[in-house]
Amino acid sequence: MTHVLPTVRNGVDSAQMFGTLDAIKANPELGAFEFRATNTWIDGAHNRATIQYFYGAGQEDHSRREPFTVDAGEPAILLGSDTGPNPAELLLSALAACLTTTLVYVATARKVQLSEVSSTLTGKMDVRGALGVSDEVRNGFTDISVHFDVKGDADDAKLRELVDRAQQRSAVYDMVTHGVPVAVTCST
Amino acid sequence: MTHVLPTVRNGVDSAQMFGTLDAIKANPELGAFEFRATNTWIDGAHNRATIQYFYGAGQEDHSRREPFTVDAGEPAILLGSDTGPNPAELLLSALAACLTTTLVYVATARKVQLSEVSSTLTGKMDVRGALGVSDEVRNGFTDISVHFDVKGDADDAKLRELVDRAQQRSAVYDMVTHGVPVAVTCST
Repeated sequence: MTHVLPTVRNGVDSAQMFGTLDAIKANPELGAFEFRATNTWIDGAHNRATIQYFYGAGQEDHSRREPFTVDAGEPAILLGSDTGPNPAELLLSALAACLTTTLVYVATARKVQLSEVSSTLTGKMDVRGALGVSDEVRNGFTDISVHFDVKGDADDAKLRELVDRAQQRSAVYDMVTHGVPVAVTCST
Repeated sequence: MTHVLPTVRNGVDSAQMFGTLDAIKANPELGAFEFRATNTWIDGAHNRATIQYFYGAGQEDHSRREPFTVDAGEPAILLGSDTGPNPAELLLSALAACLTTTLVYVATARKVQLSEVSSTLTGKMDVRGALGVSDEVRNGFTDISVHFDVKGDADDAKLRELVDRAQQRSAVYDMVTHGVPVAVTCST
């Protein structure tokens, strides 16, 4: 009898993962990606992002048959009609998603079987900045807190190490903590 | 006959807007908001954010009867099964939504009727950072570009001013360009 080691852990194919890492190590230009979103204003605080194609691993990716859409809005108190999460809540969602996926990938590489990863994020904001009432407060969150609950077949120290490593490698955590240059142009 | 001036422009009630601004000017503590998201890992690169309650204007807001959910994922080439936009694409969506809503609110305050606001965002990333293959590239986007198409009943200069003002007041633009302190804690 031949025993084949299972390569899928936490829903991630670790054989594919290590293959991908080896391919990018051998050909660093395969690491160049470009992600995109388009947004269309609908009415008031309601607008919708559409996400489908991207460039990566040396070519345009057309594997997504349908676009994803993300509707945004504001609650009544911020002059909207709750057509979706507000943009600041979407930023928290992006941060949570990135830390979580990074943690799951790191756990898979380190042979840790996870049974739970959940997180709660809060961001504090004085809206006098974004509403133009005060120049003395910033427009965005003053700070964000993230609390993870992580369970799996590893000891406490190893599980905590996964959370640390997720922070060290998460793309969105890097952007939200360090900032990114953004160039805005306009046609009228 | 009494003529009542319409207060809704671009789907935003400008009378309510100016009322809100006056209330916050008079009581600055009403500007303190806290936004939240929770995230639950489902499998592999699939996780889901849930967004509902927030604190603002001096109280807990329970006006949203149902939570919003945002599913995240990765495409096959990044070891997922396309269960949603990836976290970096969600960050672009948050940025687009915030610039757009801010632009629409500013236009409303300035009595500009908009007929179109659309935008295209791209972010370049060397995934060798996030995948842990190289310490010489950052994990997140090296830069983001945003292009707006804006049309309305104002001249070119005034429409461009709306885009400038959106950048000056957008909460997510502030966070993405300048960064925010993020504190991460963990229970196992």
